[in-house]
Amino acid sequence: MDAVKIGLCGLGTVAGGTLRVLSRNFENISARAGCDIQIVRIGARRDNPDCDTGDIPISRDLMEVATDPEVEILVELIGGTDYAAELVLAGIANGKHIVTANKALIAERGNEIFAAAEAAGVTVAYEAAVAGGIPIIKAVREGLAANSVNWLAGIINGTGNFILTEMKEKGRSFADVLAEAQALGYAEADPTFDVEGIDAAHKLVILASIAFGMPLSFDEVYTEGIGAIETQDVDYAEELGYRIKHLGIARKSPGGIELRVHPTLIPQERLLANVNGVKNAVVVDCDAVGQTLYYGAGAGSEPTASAVLADVIDIARNVRGDQSRRVPYLSYHSHAIADQVILPIEAIQSSYYLRVSVLDRPGVLSAVASILSDAGISIEAIIQKAPRPDEDVVPVIILTNSALEQSLADAVFRLQSLDSVVGAITRIRVENLDD
Amino acid sequence: MDAVKIGLCGLGTVAGGTLRVLSRNFENISARAGCDIQIVRIGARRDNPDCDTGDIPISRDLMEVATDPEVEILVELIGGTDYAAELVLAGIANGKHIVTANKALIAERGNEIFAAAEAAGVTVAYEAAVAGGIPIIKAVREGLAANSVNWLAGIINGTGNFILTEMKEKGRSFADVLAEAQALGYAEADPTFDVEGIDAAHKLVILASIAFGMPLSFDEVYTEGIGAIETQDVDYAEELGYRIKHLGIARKSPGGIELRVHPTLIPQERLLANVNGVKNAVVVDCDAVGQTLYYGAGAGSEPTASAVLADVIDIARNVRGDQSRRVPYLSYHSHAIADQVILPIEAIQSSYYLRVSVLDRPGVLSAVASILSDAGISIEAIIQKAPRPDEDVVPVIILTNSALEQSLADAVFRLQSLDSVVGAITRIRVENLDD
Repeated sequence: MDAVKIGLCGLGTVAGGTLRVLSRNFENISARAGCDIQIVRIGARRDNPDCDTGDIPISRDLMEVATDPEVEILVELIGGTDYAAELVLAGIANGKHIVTANKALIAERGNEIFAAAEAAGVTVAYEAAVAGGIPIIKAVREGLAANSVNWLAGIINGTGNFILTEMKEKGRSFADVLAEAQALGYAEADPTFDVEGIDAAHKLVILASIAFGMPLSFDEVYTEGIGAIETQDVDYAEELGYRIKHLGIARKSPGGIELRVHPTLIPQERLLANVNGVKNAVVVDCDAVGQTLYYGAGAGSEPTASAVLADVIDIARNVRGDQSRRVPYLSYHSHAIADQVILPIEAIQSSYYLRVSVLDRPGVLSAVASILSDAGISIEAIIQKAPRPDEDVVPVIILTNSALEQSLADAVFRLQSLDSVVGAITRIRVENLDD
Repeated sequence: MDAVKIGLCGLGTVAGGTLRVLSRNFENISARAGCDIQIVRIGARRDNPDCDTGDIPISRDLMEVATDPEVEILVELIGGTDYAAELVLAGIANGKHIVTANKALIAERGNEIFAAAEAAGVTVAYEAAVAGGIPIIKAVREGLAANSVNWLAGIINGTGNFILTEMKEKGRSFADVLAEAQALGYAEADPTFDVEGIDAAHKLVILASIAFGMPLSFDEVYTEGIGAIETQDVDYAEELGYRIKHLGIARKSPGGIELRVHPTLIPQERLLANVNGVKNAVVVDCDAVGQTLYYGAGAGSEPTASAVLADVIDIARNVRGDQSRRVPYLSYHSHAIADQVILPIEAIQSSYYLRVSVLDRPGVLSAVASILSDAGISIEAIIQKAPRPDEDVVPVIILTNSALEQSLADAVFRLQSLDSVVGAITRIRVENLDD
């Protein structure tokens, strides 16, 4: 049986998984691909004792792999953007197909990479870049290709979901759980990418581009982290029938495309509300099929390797065929990729959860209600707790009906200036994810 | 732009959805496929006023469509097995690629159809045959292609799930909900296919073949319906922390492959336990990626059309390429498809829920427990309700640990012969669906 020849760059966690899974399932994979998959060369600045590289030659200069005439598919697992882009572009210039797990690379440099690949007639595959082992790129680009996508919403950062799950199930604080996630190796030492939503924004912009046929526009994603969520918000949300999840949302609205990552209350009975721990899930709402959901491991060595190797098998099944007929990089063929208006966050419509700490005095609730009413914002539910014996401040929890973000922001600004309001108002968006 | 030319056979619900979605999303679909998709001929024994066929010519003799030299892809939406097989084989003999939504056809005649297609060098695509609009065939054949599948379990009949959901949420009886499902058009006038699990068995055997690389073996699926489930079983399951779902399960066990459709208790906190109403979902447990889940509409006009058209787009993207490189029919290339031992139901291991109605006398519980103990079956939990004032019979609910089905069956036979046991013992399998 002939073999498709792979050059592997990087020897980290995902590369280790890729070597292990390919070796363990070699026979299964050959039977599915119709040919053997053979790693002929590895590029890595240093060895990794956790990676069994057997007798595959290792180059310290990664460019040797990208330019090696024997290599047919270049698998990029080094991470980062600048050097990774240089490497991938060198591979493309040398006629290699590319497989990458690098979400930052695709989100930030994808437009340039896809243009180069199209000109060179090669494939760039990136299933592992979004939601790890869940085949969500394939589902949207191929499985749902007959649909118009209305919106998609996903839990696409496992660390953030682990933190919110622990806060809900064990009543722990954000800081406490974050420290544990770092100790467990879920979160990076610098957790900004995870908890501030940057990692999720990288993935969201990729999903939005393949859903709506538009160029990757990472700079236009609105991003809000989960650091301000308090245990009491998690509890009040529960009391109101909701659960707080850190969602990436892309939606086609009348005025343009919404691209936003932020904490979100969703109804408890939605499957997405029941996705716990480090798991990922994405809901896609389409005109023909309705809602479909995809769930699984969003990170980790072998789950990510599963997606990397699925891409390799896809290319191997087609490697010597006519690439112009393959699934296009961003689902739509390049002539059909069109810029679209990305809505600023102020222009979106949403319901909101507000937690306002007020002095326990007569007339305060009415003052709050009238500011909302003046702004045209109606109230769906309200909870006011009795004050503790020795306290003068009580939290008022308000669930609003759908309103324009700008109106809500103006109303919050006015509420914040009331003498009877103490401290900062907490505001979290609510999405019902209706069919 | 050139066009790929379709011949459509059948003018029922799914054909109507296919015409509607193709027309509505024509531009989107062309932009993704890289060419226009054009229906050039329809075959239908009678017209259907719900299907807008525009000026597409309609033949009463469907074979005219299957043999029309202009047709490149034959879409079979007539249902049934015998004539559908004849039609599809005629299309293959005439060099047409085939797209079908017909689960019975693939499950019962697939081996023969794939052999003919392979010889003719054409594609046979059947995404719509399993779980309607959920791209589960694509996920298993392509997205998970690097994995060894351990097991898969799915809610793959919407009618059955609707009935069980209503029984749980509203305490209604099986017969009552079934009558409503028939009135709503979910269930056929003859509901046997749905509630006896035959429809689910068709789908399960397809999933098992692509997961494990073996020929379609519909006759070997063990099938048990949901007609014997009583509302009290649903309630007791809930009390024990479980929910009853009608699952199709395929599992690789040491002695062979398990293929079974039956009512199953699963833990309430599993996502699968929270899939309600007519929705479908499939969990696939793999060695590398772990568990992934796929959820959505398992039937209906446009959801099924979504899958039919995804297949058409896939073929259109490749129609003039080298078919030998395409995704193989059953995921594995034909030389690698191997017969496997299918385990008889007596040879599987499972936990069980038993409901035994006993006379309220001293020593009865001990007699029951000792029969189980003699058979080597240990008890995980037991509930015995106090009898109502005027009743002499009480239900004893037993949750067993994992045991061999044959041992359990022998023990149930012995229990049934006790004088103190009244009426038939209810027995439902339990699966924990652990990671």
